[in-house]
Amino acid sequence: MPRVVRGSTWSARLGGLAMAACLFGALPALALDGIVEKKVFEMPSYTTVGGGTIKNVRIGWESYGKLNEAKDNVILITHFFSGNSHAAGRYKAEDAAPGYWDSIIGPGKPLDTDKYFIISSDTLVNLSPKDPTVVTTGPASINPDTGKPYGMSFPIVTIKDFVNVQKALIDSLGIKSLQAVMGGSMGSLQAFEWAADHPDMVKRLIAVIGGPEADPFLIGWLNLWAAPIKLDPNWNNGDYYGKAEPKAGLTEALKLVTLHARHWKWADAAFGRKWAEEGKDPKAAMGNQYAIEAWLDKAASGRAAVSDANHFLYLVKANQTFVTGNGASLEDGLAKIKAPVLLIPSADDLVFPPDRNMRPLKDRLEKQGNAVEYTEAITSTLGHLDGVANIAKAGETITQFLAK
Amino acid sequence: MPRVVRGSTWSARLGGLAMAACLFGALPALALDGIVEKKVFEMPSYTTVGGGTIKNVRIGWESYGKLNEAKDNVILITHFFSGNSHAAGRYKAEDAAPGYWDSIIGPGKPLDTDKYFIISSDTLVNLSPKDPTVVTTGPASINPDTGKPYGMSFPIVTIKDFVNVQKALIDSLGIKSLQAVMGGSMGSLQAFEWAADHPDMVKRLIAVIGGPEADPFLIGWLNLWAAPIKLDPNWNNGDYYGKAEPKAGLTEALKLVTLHARHWKWADAAFGRKWAEEGKDPKAAMGNQYAIEAWLDKAASGRAAVSDANHFLYLVKANQTFVTGNGASLEDGLAKIKAPVLLIPSADDLVFPPDRNMRPLKDRLEKQGNAVEYTEAITSTLGHLDGVANIAKAGETITQFLAK
Repeated sequence: MPRVVRGSTWSARLGGLAMAACLFGALPALALDGIVEKKVFEMPSYTTVGGGTIKNVRIGWESYGKLNEAKDNVILITHFFSGNSHAAGRYKAEDAAPGYWDSIIGPGKPLDTDKYFIISSDTLVNLSPKDPTVVTTGPASINPDTGKPYGMSFPIVTIKDFVNVQKALIDSLGIKSLQAVMGGSMGSLQAFEWAADHPDMVKRLIAVIGGPEADPFLIGWLNLWAAPIKLDPNWNNGDYYGKAEPKAGLTEALKLVTLHARHWKWADAAFGRKWAEEGKDPKAAMGNQYAIEAWLDKAASGRAAVSDANHFLYLVKANQTFVTGNGASLEDGLAKIKAPVLLIPSADDLVFPPDRNMRPLKDRLEKQGNAVEYTEAITSTLGHLDGVANIAKAGETITQFLAK
Repeated sequence: MPRVVRGSTWSARLGGLAMAACLFGALPALALDGIVEKKVFEMPSYTTVGGGTIKNVRIGWESYGKLNEAKDNVILITHFFSGNSHAAGRYKAEDAAPGYWDSIIGPGKPLDTDKYFIISSDTLVNLSPKDPTVVTTGPASINPDTGKPYGMSFPIVTIKDFVNVQKALIDSLGIKSLQAVMGGSMGSLQAFEWAADHPDMVKRLIAVIGGPEADPFLIGWLNLWAAPIKLDPNWNNGDYYGKAEPKAGLTEALKLVTLHARHWKWADAAFGRKWAEEGKDPKAAMGNQYAIEAWLDKAASGRAAVSDANHFLYLVKANQTFVTGNGASLEDGLAKIKAPVLLIPSADDLVFPPDRNMRPLKDRLEKQGNAVEYTEAITSTLGHLDGVANIAKAGETITQFLAK
C-alpha cells in the first residue's frame, strides 16, 4: 500500500504563520516564501510499463494551498528535466530563491493558493538525487535485493511510469479529479500523458515549452547530451558508486543542456564577446576562454555536484521514448485527451521549437475537437528557459483558462 | 619564397578531355565531373598574426576554369569547418560525388568556368589531414625542429591566418584582383576577412550561411563541440600521435557538428521516430537506438576516420576568436569592407541564425554605404547545411551579382 510520510503540510504551517502575523498587525499577503516542506510518498513495489520491478519506491512531493473537503481543488505540477518538485515557496526564510514557478503560484497569483491545492512531485530517476531537497528512486538508489546501488540494472522507465507513480500518490490522498495538470518541458510530456491516460480525471491541461512527443531531431540531441557521460572513463558502464564518479562527463552533459535551453539573445545580453579573465586574451592561449565558456563550466559544475550521471542517462531514455499515450501512434495518444488545453511555448525555443511542436499541435487538437488556447507571451530572451523564468507573462491567460 | 608544386592544372587536363570529346562527336557540356587535380602551395615559413612561426607550410588547392592573360577573372572559394578545397568536379570519373558546390561551379553555371578561373584552397589546421585529398599544416604535421608532430605546441591560428596564407598563394600566381571571394559558414568568415584586409583587391563578397563574427552563443556551442575530445582519455592533452587516438571523443564532437548543422525538418523527413533495428525497441534496452542515433554514429565515425582531434580544437579556436578585421571592434572591421556584398543565409540556420547574423549585417553594411543583396532562397529542410546542399537555389542571384 502506498503511504504518505514525513509530512506536516505546508498549509498547516501556513496556519501558524498567519496566526503569528495577526498577533503583530495586519495579515500580510502571504506568498509562498513562507515555509514549504518536502514530503515523501512511498510504494513498497512498483512494476514499470516495461515489466520491471522497483521495490521501495520513494518520491518527494510538495504542496501549496489547502485541500478542500470535496478534494476537488487540486492542480498537479510536473517538473522539467533538470528540475524537481520545488515549484514554489521556500524551505527556509533565508533560502536564496523560491521554487521555480513561484511567480505564478501563491495567494492571488494565477495558481492561487487561496483557492487551489497545488501538488508538485519529484519524478523517478530525478536528475539530482544528491540534492538534499530531492527524493527520488533510480540507478543511484540501493537495490534492496543486493544492498548495492542499481546502476544500469535499474529498469528502463518512461514518462508514463512517472505518471503512474504520481497517480498512486494522488490516489493515496483520496483525490479523484484534477483541476489541471501543468508542466514545463519534460513536465509538459507528463502533463500530456496524464491527460491521455486519465481523461475523466484531468479537467485541464497546461503544457509549457514542450510537445506531445520527442521529435526525431530532439531524439538526436538527447543522444548528444548523454554522450559526454559515456566518454568519461569514470562512468565505467554505470558502475561508479563508491568510486571516483564521472564528474567531468556529467559536467559537459549539463553544459549541453544549459546552452541548448537558452538562446543567442541571452548570450548577447549576458556576455557579449567578453573574455573570462582580464588580460587573458582567448587568442593568446588554448586555455584562455570567453566569459560564456567559463560561465557554462561553472554553472554545469555546480549542477553536477548534486546530480547523478546514470540518472541523466535514464532521463534521456525516458524523454527519447516519449509519445503521448505511450503507444506507437501520436494520433491515437492525442485522441484520448478530452481536456481543454492551454499551450504556452516560447517562440525562441530550441529544444521544443514551436513550429515543430505546439503550433501544429494546436491545429491537431482543435481538429479532433479539443478546446485549445495558445500563447507565446512568455517569449523574451532566454529561449526554452523562458518557460521557467518568464512564465508570469502568461499569468493572465493561465488565470482565465483555470476560471473557465 | 612561396611556390606552387605538383600541378598540371585542371584546365590543362580539361583541354585533353575536350579534344577526346571532339573525336567522338559533339562536344558535351563539360561539367567539372571531368578531372580535377589537387595542387600544393608551399611556404618555407609563415609567421602567424599571434607571432608564432610555422615552417614548411603546405596547403592544397584546386582550380576550375582558365586564368586569363590579364589574370583578372579570378574567384576565390573558401571552405567550411569540416570541408576542404574540393569545391567542384571529380578527381576520378568514378568518384561517387563531385566537390561540394559543383551545382554552381562549371561551364554555364553561376560560377562559370568558361569565364572565371576559380581557386579553392585548403585552410591551415584543416579538419581532415588524413583525407588523402587534403593538404594542410597543423598539429598533426611534423615540426621540422623536433621531427615529431606539433600536437598542442602548434601556434594558435586565426581566420586571418587562413587568409594570409591564401593571399600568399594568390600572390604566387601573379593575381592582383579577385572578382569575388565566396565562402560558406567558416568560409564566409574568411570571405569577410578577405574583404576587410584587401578592400582594393576584392571586387565582390559572397557570404553564405555565416556571419561577420562568432556571436557569443556560437562561442559557447563551439566550446561544447570540442568538449568530447578532451574527455576522451586517448586525447592525452593532444599527445596521441603514434598511439591510440581519441577516436571516440572525435566521433562525438563530429556528431555535434553534424546535428547542429541540420534541422528538425531534415530529421522528420529522413528518420521520423524509426528504430535503428527492427525488433530492437529503444524502450526495451538502454543500448537500443532510434534510427537517427545510429545514423549520427555512423556518419560521424566515417568523418572521424580521416580527421584529427587536435585540428578540430584549433579550428574551434579560430572560429571562436573571429571578428571581421581581427580587431576588437566589429564596427571597425566592417568599415574596411568596400566591396558589394551578397548575403545568402538559410532561414533555418541554427549555427549562424540569420536573425542574429546576416539580417542585422545587411542593415549595418547598407548604413555604411555598401551595396548589399540578400536572399534566403536556399532555405529548404537542412538548416545550416542548406548552404552547401541547396546553394543552386541562389544560382540566379549569384549570376546577376557577378555580372554587375
